[in-house]
Amino acid sequence: MFDLQVKLHQIKPLDRAIMEETQVHLDDLTKPPGSLGVMEEIARCIAGITGKVKPQIRRKTSILMAADHGVVDEGVSAYPSVVTAQMVLNFLNGGAAINVLSRHVGAELAVMDVGVASDLPDHPSLWKKKVAYGTRNMVREAAMTRAQALEAIKNGYDLAEHFINGGTELIGTGEMGIGNTTASTALLVHFAGVPVNDVVGRGTGIDDERLKLKIKAIEAALQHHKPPLDDPLEALARIGGLEIAGLVGVFLACAVKRVPAIVDGFISAAAALVASRLHPHLRDYLLASHLSEEPGHRLMLELIGIRPVLHMKMRLGEGTGAALAMNIIEASLKILNEMATFSSAGVSGTLEDGGVTQSP
Amino acid sequence: MFDLQVKLHQIKPLDRAIMEETQVHLDDLTKPPGSLGVMEEIARCIAGITGKVKPQIRRKTSILMAADHGVVDEGVSAYPSVVTAQMVLNFLNGGAAINVLSRHVGAELAVMDVGVASDLPDHPSLWKKKVAYGTRNMVREAAMTRAQALEAIKNGYDLAEHFINGGTELIGTGEMGIGNTTASTALLVHFAGVPVNDVVGRGTGIDDERLKLKIKAIEAALQHHKPPLDDPLEALARIGGLEIAGLVGVFLACAVKRVPAIVDGFISAAAALVASRLHPHLRDYLLASHLSEEPGHRLMLELIGIRPVLHMKMRLGEGTGAALAMNIIEASLKILNEMATFSSAGVSGTLEDGGVTQSP
Repeated sequence: MFDLQVKLHQIKPLDRAIMEETQVHLDDLTKPPGSLGVMEEIARCIAGITGKVKPQIRRKTSILMAADHGVVDEGVSAYPSVVTAQMVLNFLNGGAAINVLSRHVGAELAVMDVGVASDLPDHPSLWKKKVAYGTRNMVREAAMTRAQALEAIKNGYDLAEHFINGGTELIGTGEMGIGNTTASTALLVHFAGVPVNDVVGRGTGIDDERLKLKIKAIEAALQHHKPPLDDPLEALARIGGLEIAGLVGVFLACAVKRVPAIVDGFISAAAALVASRLHPHLRDYLLASHLSEEPGHRLMLELIGIRPVLHMKMRLGEGTGAALAMNIIEASLKILNEMATFSSAGVSGTLEDGGVTQSP
Repeated sequence: MFDLQVKLHQIKPLDRAIMEETQVHLDDLTKPPGSLGVMEEIARCIAGITGKVKPQIRRKTSILMAADHGVVDEGVSAYPSVVTAQMVLNFLNGGAAINVLSRHVGAELAVMDVGVASDLPDHPSLWKKKVAYGTRNMVREAAMTRAQALEAIKNGYDLAEHFINGGTELIGTGEMGIGNTTASTALLVHFAGVPVNDVVGRGTGIDDERLKLKIKAIEAALQHHKPPLDDPLEALARIGGLEIAGLVGVFLACAVKRVPAIVDGFISAAAALVASRLHPHLRDYLLASHLSEEPGHRLMLELIGIRPVLHMKMRLGEGTGAALAMNIIEASLKILNEMATFSSAGVSGTLEDGGVTQSP
C-alpha cells in the first residue's frame, strides 16, 4: 500500500557536512573561488542530495506524464484534446522535441499515460497507468477525487522509483496534456493568492478570445472550489491534473530516494509547487532548468525557491528545458571531478594569500 | 599581407531567403509555432550564416587567447601576472575548467600565446604567436601600437581560418590574461560613454582597496588617451589588450568565412564589441552564451545586440560559458534536423486551423 504520509516522513534534509567537504574541494580548483557560480552551487547541491563529496551521473531519465483535462470543454486551448494522444504516439515514434533533446543529452525517455482520454497501444517506452480518461471539468466539479490524485501520485512515484532502482542518478520531468496550463495557472493563483490576470498566459499560443475564456474558467473553478490552503493534496485534486499529480509523485520519489530532479516549464513547476507544499525539505531535491515564456513561471519558481539557469523563451513543456539542463548539470559535476587543484597544477594563489609563485 | 579593410569588405549580410525557408520548416514541426523560443532563433540564425536550410555542426573548436597586461602594475588584480603563464600550462595539461567543459561538449581546444609575459614550451595545442611580452601600462602610454593590435588581429584571424578550413563549424571564444577585466572595462566605458563606477566589477574577486585602484587606473587611462569614437582599432590599441585583439580577429574570420562564433564572458564580449564596431553586419555572426556576474557584461551584450541564454553567475572566462552554449546550439540544430512534422506524425493542427484530426 502507498501511504503518502509515510513517504513524506522519509524525506531528510541535505547532508550539510558533505556539502562543506565539496565546497572545500571546489575552492581548491584552479579558478578564483566561486567564479563558476551556479555550476558550483549545482555540484554542492547534488553532493548534499546524494551524500557523496564527488557525485557522478552515469544514467539519466526524462519522465513524461501525459493526461487530458475536462476543462478543455470551456474552450481554453487552441488544440483539441485528441492532440494529447497524438503527441504521445509522436513521443513513442521518436519524433517530438523531447525525443530529439533526450537523445542529444543521452537520457532515456519514459512516457506514462496517467490519464489520456483515449486508449493507447502497447510500447516498451509507454507505462500504461491510466487513472481516468482525463479529469473532469473543474469549472463544474472537482477535477479528480482525492483517491484519484493519490493514485496518480503513486503511479509517478513507482515509475521514478523503478528507474532509480535501475541506476538512474538524474531525473528530468515533463508533461503533455492539452489544457494543462489552465490547471497549472489555477494552482498558482491558489497558492500565490494573486489575481488570475497577473499570471495567466497563452499556453500553446491562444488568441485573445480564448484567453478570456481561460481566465473565466480559472476564476470560476477557484470560486466554485475554494480549496483549503493548508491541504495541497485537496487543491491538486480539485483544480489540478492527473499528469501534475503524477509529477508530484516523481518529485516525491526523488526526495525520498535522494536523487536530483529537474523542474521543467510551467506545468512541471506547478507539480513541484504542490510537492514543495507537502514537505518543507522537498524543494532541496529540485533543480530548476529554464525560465518559461509563460508569465506565471517566474513567480512559481520563486515560490518553490529555485532559480532557472536557461533563459530561452521556451513554452513547449514535454521536459525540453529539463533535458537541456541535464547537460549543464553533468558539466557541473565534471568540473568537481576533473579539474586540477592549485597545488597539483602549480598555479599561484592570490596576492592576498601571499601570491606564492611556483615555477612550473 | 593581412589587410583589415579587405577582410571587412568580405563580410556579407545573413542569407534572408534561406532563413525564411528554415522558418517554414520550423513551423511545420510538431510543436506550437515559436514554442522553442531561442532554440528556433539560433537555428534560423545559423541557417542565415551558413546559407544552409538545415545546417549541422560536425566539428567545433574552443579558441583561447592568452596575453598579459601592463596595467597590472597599478595593483588592479588579485593575482600576479605570472598566473597567466601558469594557467596556460594548466590548459595544456588539461586541468582547467575550459578543458573539462570542452571535453564535455566534444570541442577541441586551441590556445594561442598572443602576448604572455614569459616564454612558454612547445605543445601541440599551443599556437605561439606572441606579439609582445604583454601590453604596456595604459595609464602611462598606449597599451599597444596600432601595428601590434593589427598583428594580434591577424594572428587570431589566421588561427580561426585554420580551423574553419579544417572543418570547424562552430567556434567558441575564451581568454586568459591577468588584468584583462580592467582593459575590457575601459573599452566598455569608452564605447558606452557611461561612468566607470556604473560598470566596473571585481574581476577575479578583488577587495575594495584594489577596486578603487582599478577605477582610478581606468579613469586615468581614458583621460590620458581620449581615443576617438569613430576609430575602434585605435581604442583597441590604446586601452585594449593583445588577447582582446586576437579575439577580434577570430570574430572577423568567422564573419568572413560564415561560421557562427560564440561570445563568452566580459573580455570576449569586449572583443566582440570592438569587432561589431568595425562592420555593421559582423554582429549577425555572433551568438551570446552566458550573462556574466561582471556587472558591465549585460550592457556590453546589449550594445553588441545579442542576448545570453545562460544565467549562471559565472565570472571565470576561458571560454567556459561558450563551451556550455555549444551543447545548446547543437541541440537547436538537431531540433531543426530531427523533429517530425505535423503531417508525418499525424498530429492535428490548431482548432483555428480547422483542427483536422488525422487518426494515427
